[in-house]
Amino acid sequence: MVNKRLLQTSPTNINQIVAFHALMSSNTPDITAEHTLRFDMVKTNIGNGYHPATGVFIVPVTGVYVFTWTIREDVHNYHTTQLMKNTEAVDVVHLSPNGRIGEVTGIAVFMANEGDDVFVETYTQFNAGYISSYPAGRSSFSGWKLA
Amino acid sequence: MVNKRLLQTSPTNINQIVAFHALMSSNTPDITAEHTLRFDMVKTNIGNGYHPATGVFIVPVTGVYVFTWTIREDVHNYHTTQLMKNTEAVDVVHLSPNGRIGEVTGIAVFMANEGDDVFVETYTQFNAGYISSYPAGRSSFSGWKLA
Amino acid sequence: MVNKRLLQTSPTNINQIVAFHALMSSNTPDITAEHTLRFDMVKTNIGNGYHPATGVFIVPVTGVYVFTWTIREDVHNYHTTQLMKNTEAVDVVHLSPNGRIGEVTGIAVFMANEGDDVFVETYTQFNAGYISSYPAGRSSFSGWKLA
Repeated sequence: MVNKRLLQTSPTNINQIVAFHALMSSNTPDITAEHTLRFDMVKTNIGNGYHPATGVFIVPVTGVYVFTWTIREDVHNYHTTQLMKNTEAVDVVHLSPNGRIGEVTGIAVFMANEGDDVFVETYTQFNAGYISSYPAGRSSFSGWKLA
Repeated sequence: MVNKRLLQTSPTNINQIVAFHALMSSNTPDITAEHTLRFDMVKTNIGNGYHPATGVFIVPVTGVYVFTWTIREDVHNYHTTQLMKNTEAVDVVHLSPNGRIGEVTGIAVFMANEGDDVFVETYTQFNAGYISSYPAGRSSFSGWKLA
Repeated sequence: MVNKRLLQTSPTNINQIVAFHALMSSNTPDITAEHTLRFDMVKTNIGNGYHPATGVFIVPVTGVYVFTWTIREDVHNYHTTQLMKNTEAVDVVHLSPNGRIGEVTGIAVFMANEGDDVFVETYTQFNAGYISSYPAGRSSFSGWKLA
């Protein structure tokens, strides 16, 4: 009995898939410093770690994770966005298109423990206007656990 | 006999690697709306799911996949490109460098069934000129199955 | 004895995690052609494949890997950066913001053998000024092995 249970449990832990992908459903209001971004249009949420009401991914299973985020900026808006693991800024990107339209992507990889909070927020400086997202160009947040 | 077969089959299914990475070999002609992009220079195609003649990745094994695409725009060209899963637009990015040169990246994660079509196409609006790709800056499409 | 050893060895090889993520700690000096970029601020280095002193990831376990790099350019700087696998340029991106600020991301997926060198370098042409990286916008390099 004990052996049988071990055999069933072990592969489940190793291969349990955790993955999410969420978009912003519309442009945000104007956003300045230290604002957690909410990606409210959930496309994938395997493992139910991502919480669209707050924008926070609460790590459901300890492991090594990849996170990516893409931010669209229009014309005279600009923002500096950072990926937070609890209170630590793991990585940060900036886009200031200044009359143009573009998107910027950040990617980070790290070990996270069950219960850690992972989210995207604006930096303390260098933010102006709204973040864009609509059917012709989305802002998004995604992540997945490595096996 | 039955047990032996189960033991061999199960790890193969769980750990079968599927991964592709393809570049455009040259600039495209001018592209407007709803044009499937062909990334014809295949660098990786483990599992043979990617079809360079059409630009379509036909999912060879049901699972959770990550897809990424990067589009280079020069000067006065601009395009809105979306990742399609069959007839659904999963994610979309836009870049209009307007006199500059840049690239934009999209990333999406979702469950896909064997036989699903995944590809990148231009959106119904906001497209002008050609998409760039040459040895000093490529447009690319890639994807892989999570374990 | 033989069977027991096989059972223990096989899952270890299949599921061994290799993953790294490193940032540049500060702006580089001016960089022109064929300069290997050093991402000296290591955030993750599971498997110890990444060498911050040189910027080179030496593949510790044969397998299929995903690599990503993000480069920040300020104002009148521009660079063409390519991902190298030994002497082969696998993928390349360019950003010339020309008065603006932005970041560009490249992603590649390929099979690599133990001992292969993977790194980011500037292309033979189209480079000017420094590459930016500071707390309000980083340049980064990351990679991980698929299961």
